[in-house]
Amino acid sequence: MTIDSQLNFILELEKLKGVIRQTILLTGERQENTAEHSWHIAIAALTLAPFADKPIDISRVVKMLLIHDIIEIDAGDTFAFDKDGYEDKFEREKAAADRIFGLLPDEQGEGFKSLWLEFEMVETNDSEFANAIDRLLPFLQNVYTEGQSSWVRHGISVDQVIKRNEISSRASKELWATMQKLIERSVEQGWLKSG
Amino acid sequence: MTIDSQLNFILELEKLKGVIRQTILLTGERQENTAEHSWHIAIAALTLAPFADKPIDISRVVKMLLIHDIIEIDAGDTFAFDKDGYEDKFEREKAAADRIFGLLPDEQGEGFKSLWLEFEMVETNDSEFANAIDRLLPFLQNVYTEGQSSWVRHGISVDQVIKRNEISSRASKELWATMQKLIERSVEQGWLKSG
Repeated sequence: MTIDSQLNFILELEKLKGVIRQTILLTGERQENTAEHSWHIAIAALTLAPFADKPIDISRVVKMLLIHDIIEIDAGDTFAFDKDGYEDKFEREKAAADRIFGLLPDEQGEGFKSLWLEFEMVETNDSEFANAIDRLLPFLQNVYTEGQSSWVRHGISVDQVIKRNEISSRASKELWATMQKLIERSVEQGWLKSG
Repeated sequence: MTIDSQLNFILELEKLKGVIRQTILLTGERQENTAEHSWHIAIAALTLAPFADKPIDISRVVKMLLIHDIIEIDAGDTFAFDKDGYEDKFEREKAAADRIFGLLPDEQGEGFKSLWLEFEMVETNDSEFANAIDRLLPFLQNVYTEGQSSWVRHGISVDQVIKRNEISSRASKELWATMQKLIERSVEQGWLKSG
C-alpha cells in the first residue's frame, strides 16, 4: 500500500476552500466557502445528535457531512433555491464524484462515494439527519442576519423555506418546533416573503 | 431538555471562520481560517486512518479534530513556531474552553472539553494520530508552495520542522517516511533553512 494517492487526494481537497456559497456569514463580512461550511455542519451534527428522534450512527453522519460537498470542487455550489441549477445537479455531481473519489485506491474511493450517494438519496436515518443539519445552518444564518444571508437578496418565500427544511420534522421534533417559531418570526419581520 | 443552548453554541462557532492562521492556501490567494483548516484535518484523518500504526478509534480522532481548535475563537491562533505565544498558550486556551464549551449543558460541554484536553495532552493513541494530522496539513501546504505558505516568510529551519512533525514517526511509519523525503527536498531547494 502506498500513501501517495491519499496525499494527492488531501491536496486536491484544498480547492473546496475556494468554492463560494450564496450564504453570507453571520458577521456580514463575506460569503461563506464550502470547506468551512462542511466543518460547521459536522460539528453541529455532533452537538445536536442528542435530539435525533430515530436511531442514528453519529460517526457515520459526521463522516457523510465531511465528505458530501467535496464534489463541489468540480460541480460548484448549487444554491438551494435555484431551480435551473437543480436540473442537471446530480449529473454534474456524479461526474465530480467519479473523478475526485477516483483519486483514492478503489476500495477507499468507493466507500467515500457511497456515503456521498447515501446523503443524496436520503433513504436512511443517517442521511435524513445529515440533510436536516446541512439545511439548518443557512437557515440559522438567515434568521440571525434578518434574512441578509441570502433570503432577502433572492426574494425567498416562507413556502420555499418550509419545503426545504421540513425534513427536520422527521429528523428531530424538538429542532423542528424551534425552527417553526423562527420561521414565524421571520415572516412577521418581513425577512421572508409570505405565501 | 431544551435545544436553545446547543443552537447558541452552534451560532457562536461561526466566529471560527474569522480566525486567521499564518498558513497561506496552496492557491496563494489568502491566509487560511481555522474553520476550513478544521474540516481539512478531519477529512485528512479519515483518509489516512489506514496508515495508523497503533490501534485508533477514527471516529474519536475525527471528533477531536473538529473540536480542538474551537478555543481559538477566544484565544486566537498561535503560530506553531512562535515561542513567546506558546508561553501562555495553555492558560489562554483553558479559559476559552471554559467559556465556549460552557455554553452547552454540563455533560455535553464537559465531554467536548475533555476531548480538547486529550488532544492537548497527547498521551493517547487517538490524540497522537490527531496531532500528527493537524501538523501534516501546514507541512504539505508549505512543501507544495515551495515554502511560501509560511516557512520562507518566517525563516523556518529544518530542525524546527522535524521537531514539530516527528510525532508522525510514532503515529505512522509510512507517513513519516514520505515526509522525510519531502523534508530533504525542501532543504535541497532552499524552502527550509538547513541546520
